[in-house]
Amino acid sequence: LIAERAAALFDSGALAGLRLVITAGPTREALDPVRYLSNHSSGKMGYALARAAAEAGAVTTLVSGPVHLDTPAHVRRVDVESARDMLDACQALVADCDIFIACAAVADYRPATVREQKIKKGGEHSSLKLIRNPDIVAAIANGTPRPFTVGFAAETQDVVDYARDKLQRKNLDLIVANDVSKADLGFASDENEVTAIWRDGASQLPRATKHNLARELVALIAERHASAGNRGDSAL
Amino acid sequence: LIAERAAALFDSGALAGLRLVITAGPTREALDPVRYLSNHSSGKMGYALARAAAEAGAVTTLVSGPVHLDTPAHVRRVDVESARDMLDACQALVADCDIFIACAAVADYRPATVREQKIKKGGEHSSLKLIRNPDIVAAIANGTPRPFTVGFAAETQDVVDYARDKLQRKNLDLIVANDVSKADLGFASDENEVTAIWRDGASQLPRATKHNLARELVALIAERHASAGNRGDSAL
Repeated sequence: LIAERAAALFDSGALAGLRLVITAGPTREALDPVRYLSNHSSGKMGYALARAAAEAGAVTTLVSGPVHLDTPAHVRRVDVESARDMLDACQALVADCDIFIACAAVADYRPATVREQKIKKGGEHSSLKLIRNPDIVAAIANGTPRPFTVGFAAETQDVVDYARDKLQRKNLDLIVANDVSKADLGFASDENEVTAIWRDGASQLPRATKHNLARELVALIAERHASAGNRGDSAL
Repeated sequence: LIAERAAALFDSGALAGLRLVITAGPTREALDPVRYLSNHSSGKMGYALARAAAEAGAVTTLVSGPVHLDTPAHVRRVDVESARDMLDACQALVADCDIFIACAAVADYRPATVREQKIKKGGEHSSLKLIRNPDIVAAIANGTPRPFTVGFAAETQDVVDYARDKLQRKNLDLIVANDVSKADLGFASDENEVTAIWRDGASQLPRATKHNLARELVALIAERHASAGNRGDSAL
């Protein structure tokens, strides 16, 4: 059923005329000129979504952390490193954006200070002071203008419960819940299985290649965006 | 002069019959199933050294952190993630090793504890307890059996002074000093310039592609190894 819906949407170019911004990949948070904190996000899911969105006719911009992937055809790409860079890039794009998809694995914390010189080894124990990064998807979902906003929840336990909570807490239109504890799925894998959740509904998307899953998700997002009308604007 | 010396060595297969182990790339130190500490090492210099060593006739093994590089022809590759994995791999290889080249950018510290579940966001500030990683090149240079041991010093200030100190402190036979503060050289770049330092001499290798620099370094290492005789064994 979902696959049929996806095929129908792609045939009709259902996202034609819509402008999508998609974040992808990890962020890197510098400690000093050589060291950083990061995570295992490969960027594959976000890149697959950008490809699927462009195929469905959307004007698509990828805001990408450091990954080793080719930019999909007909997609504009803006490269960033840190969470703060990514927020700046997204805020610069949001005025011309109908649908915002936050697929990047943004570092929750960054080192409180960034040293200009490489930090020398000290004693046997050390500690690193951290400070919270901006919450990019919440900033976009609570900003003006406000696009239809889609978040991701990559968790290792209580995945769907946590995602529902995050949907409400961050004022999102849709959230895609992703269990990254399964070693053969998720971050570095070419396959994934997710649950899409919105205010009054949910849809389980079974295991598939990230490319096929991205097409199904883009179809679902287009459908939810259409049925929501301009909820974003009316919520102001 | 250095280039001529390199060409002569490669023509003669001067490393034929010698067994080299080379570490390359960064290490990744897990905080939890998705997050890690790492650094910007691309692995290019270590991979170029492995290629040059194999071309010079050495039986060459790469112990590699996570990088996006193809394994050079005729080189055996052992993939590792953390510093402790890398030390284990090197110690398993050292009994069959004439020359050990520690080119990897090993994380000095790792998180003191690795969480089994993804760490949830907490307050505005947080901190990460760290513990020193094993010093791989010092462990090899002070172990039994002891190969001819080459270290690298990637620094952003006082590069040569620090390297000389490290040569003595860690009981190395040769150290390659590398100024990573120059934005267009070093870690992610295809070019580099280094100074090779040993107990009673030094040689500056001017800016070159990492491939050419690797050939010159391998020639220099072969020369120093030959002139040192079996210093390693006699020092026991």
